[in-house]
Amino acid sequence: MPSEVYAKGLEGVVAAESRICKVDGEQGNLYYRGYSIYDLAEHCTFEEVTYLLLYEHLPAAGELASFSQKMRAGRDLPQPVQEMVSSFPPSAHPMELLQAVISYLSGYVGHSIEHSAFCNCRNTLHQVAQLASVVAAVARFREGKAYVPSDPALSHGANFLYMLRGTRPDQREGEIMDTCLILHAEHGFNASTFTARVVASTLSTCYCSIASAIGSLYGSLHGGANERVIAMLDEIGNVKNVAGWVEKAFREKRKIMGMGHRVYRVKDPRACIMEGYLKELSELKGNFRYYDMLRELERRVGGCPTASDRPIYPNVDFFSGAVYLLLGIPPLLFTPLFAVARVAGWLAHILEQRSDNRIYRPRCLYAGPEPRPFIHKNMRTTRDG
Amino acid sequence: MPSEVYAKGLEGVVAAESRICKVDGEQGNLYYRGYSIYDLAEHCTFEEVTYLLLYEHLPAAGELASFSQKMRAGRDLPQPVQEMVSSFPPSAHPMELLQAVISYLSGYVGHSIEHSAFCNCRNTLHQVAQLASVVAAVARFREGKAYVPSDPALSHGANFLYMLRGTRPDQREGEIMDTCLILHAEHGFNASTFTARVVASTLSTCYCSIASAIGSLYGSLHGGANERVIAMLDEIGNVKNVAGWVEKAFREKRKIMGMGHRVYRVKDPRACIMEGYLKELSELKGNFRYYDMLRELERRVGGCPTASDRPIYPNVDFFSGAVYLLLGIPPLLFTPLFAVARVAGWLAHILEQRSDNRIYRPRCLYAGPEPRPFIHKNMRTTRDG
Repeated sequence: MPSEVYAKGLEGVVAAESRICKVDGEQGNLYYRGYSIYDLAEHCTFEEVTYLLLYEHLPAAGELASFSQKMRAGRDLPQPVQEMVSSFPPSAHPMELLQAVISYLSGYVGHSIEHSAFCNCRNTLHQVAQLASVVAAVARFREGKAYVPSDPALSHGANFLYMLRGTRPDQREGEIMDTCLILHAEHGFNASTFTARVVASTLSTCYCSIASAIGSLYGSLHGGANERVIAMLDEIGNVKNVAGWVEKAFREKRKIMGMGHRVYRVKDPRACIMEGYLKELSELKGNFRYYDMLRELERRVGGCPTASDRPIYPNVDFFSGAVYLLLGIPPLLFTPLFAVARVAGWLAHILEQRSDNRIYRPRCLYAGPEPRPFIHKNMRTTRDG
Repeated sequence: MPSEVYAKGLEGVVAAESRICKVDGEQGNLYYRGYSIYDLAEHCTFEEVTYLLLYEHLPAAGELASFSQKMRAGRDLPQPVQEMVSSFPPSAHPMELLQAVISYLSGYVGHSIEHSAFCNCRNTLHQVAQLASVVAAVARFREGKAYVPSDPALSHGANFLYMLRGTRPDQREGEIMDTCLILHAEHGFNASTFTARVVASTLSTCYCSIASAIGSLYGSLHGGANERVIAMLDEIGNVKNVAGWVEKAFREKRKIMGMGHRVYRVKDPRACIMEGYLKELSELKGNFRYYDMLRELERRVGGCPTASDRPIYPNVDFFSGAVYLLLGIPPLLFTPLFAVARVAGWLAHILEQRSDNRIYRPRCLYAGPEPRPFIHKNMRTTRDG
């Protein structure tokens, strides 16, 4: 009986059935609704993948056109939300702002059927569309620049770069950004997706559920790995230092950022795709600094056994930070950008949770003091007095 | 092995050990850190109980004075937060606003050690103190009234009534409000507390964790029961209709709001205390309408077996809505007020989670489509076309 077993962190406990995402850790493949990430990255837009995640099937041309139109029409931030973004103290982290904005946004859209399995969030789509706009606006306001209204002619990824830079990205940059969002859109259960489902299980709104997932993603045990990869590369300095750095890291049993994964026994398929983009962008920008270091790092570390005797390989975070940097995205936006993509998966999980719901209500074991008599204030002494 | 068992909603699964709260469902008692809720309600202020929850021991006089001073100094809302509250569309629910404000507030306080077990949130206390101020401000702004700055001479409960009304409540009203907060401050694991711990387990901030718990509490399966009690009383109309209404409700197997509890086999101790306040306030205000109906309802339903053959008794929500109404608090604020109190418990659970942390990462069973080939857009047909 599970009630007798205390599994810390719910390790090994099955919390739900899901039809959304399958990870093949042995072969190194990832499937959304049965479609390989390689196919989706090659043939789809982020909007198309979002449709697939939310509706369980690939859209026909007409369905995609109407879905894209709806999502693009929902991109721009209402004035009070822009003010909220611009008033947020620059010393604070954009992830907390992002969490705040999402629940605040709920007031500005007609999500009429809130507390129900039948929520109209697949129609409003603001919570998916506007996350990218908020992240772009945060970066601009921090630099004292003005808000850039969205361009409905651009894909979700290209429009993000446009709203960030104020100038339209070239076509290939836009495509790469859009595919990066596809690669991060979903990855089964993890703490943030589980958070989204726990909150949805109370029949709270999708805005509240997504905001909570963002709060979870902000945790240093969850998001932020690609930021740490860049910090590691900056520490290494250049490709010639890699060999010595790796040797020292192994000697000191230091963790190599962006390497190793709980599920993948081989190279993460998203890392394989991302590596191609990094090469392309390095050529486009004439800057191979990060690419060369990462390749050399992989050559020396990839396949090496770790303390747990399992060989480690690059995961999605290994190349993504460098890709983002070459796209002109500052590291502060890396974790927020994860949320911009993963919101599609969160929403799919929220809908799935509602479709066959039971509120998450695990037990806890009481291990505190037994009932004791109350002591009045004037009979207590301070601990340090 | 737990990994073989799929417990929907994690029912019966033990997720953690906790030293905070003990519920004695057989005897009808509730203990925070070993102290009975009867003692705490009689002898303590909400600030004192918050200290107890956060520090695991009752404060000595000096400790309490400095804790109260700190909490009272942190009550007032920064200007941008006031604007955020006043710009929130009145058609939207204050719970989403409350969630937004808490994460937004993080930008305005020096919670320097964020991603760590050693967070300074026990020192800043803004997230506890300001929730009450936000709820009061929401109600005032909706009525076109101005923000009322807090009064550091008043207890947390009395100050809430002051910031809501704009005039100081009489002493007994203030005491009752403060004790209502004590009664709701903690109740072990439930969906919102579990949410707070899941988010904290990623080493996210206490602001993000509390905001997420608020999102969970907003779910109709979680918060909102006392609002529904008032709706039920309004439907019944007056004390003479109770007998007929109850008969019909039993015949139609309709749920009696505010009755029955998952754990208590007898009358909820908080309902026993709350009933006394309702009587007092009814005398004070010369209005026994709700009191008489509730007493008659309890007389006819209390102890009656339900469908599950377990007798039902009043729970905390049975009398609390009527108490709040007599204190001049509109029903829209009932669930937000739950958060104002429970934030103390959430923060205690967040600190406890961090003190011996493992990230919550349960598994899910994949039950979706097997890998399938990609079909190009122009080869797909719409489902309805």
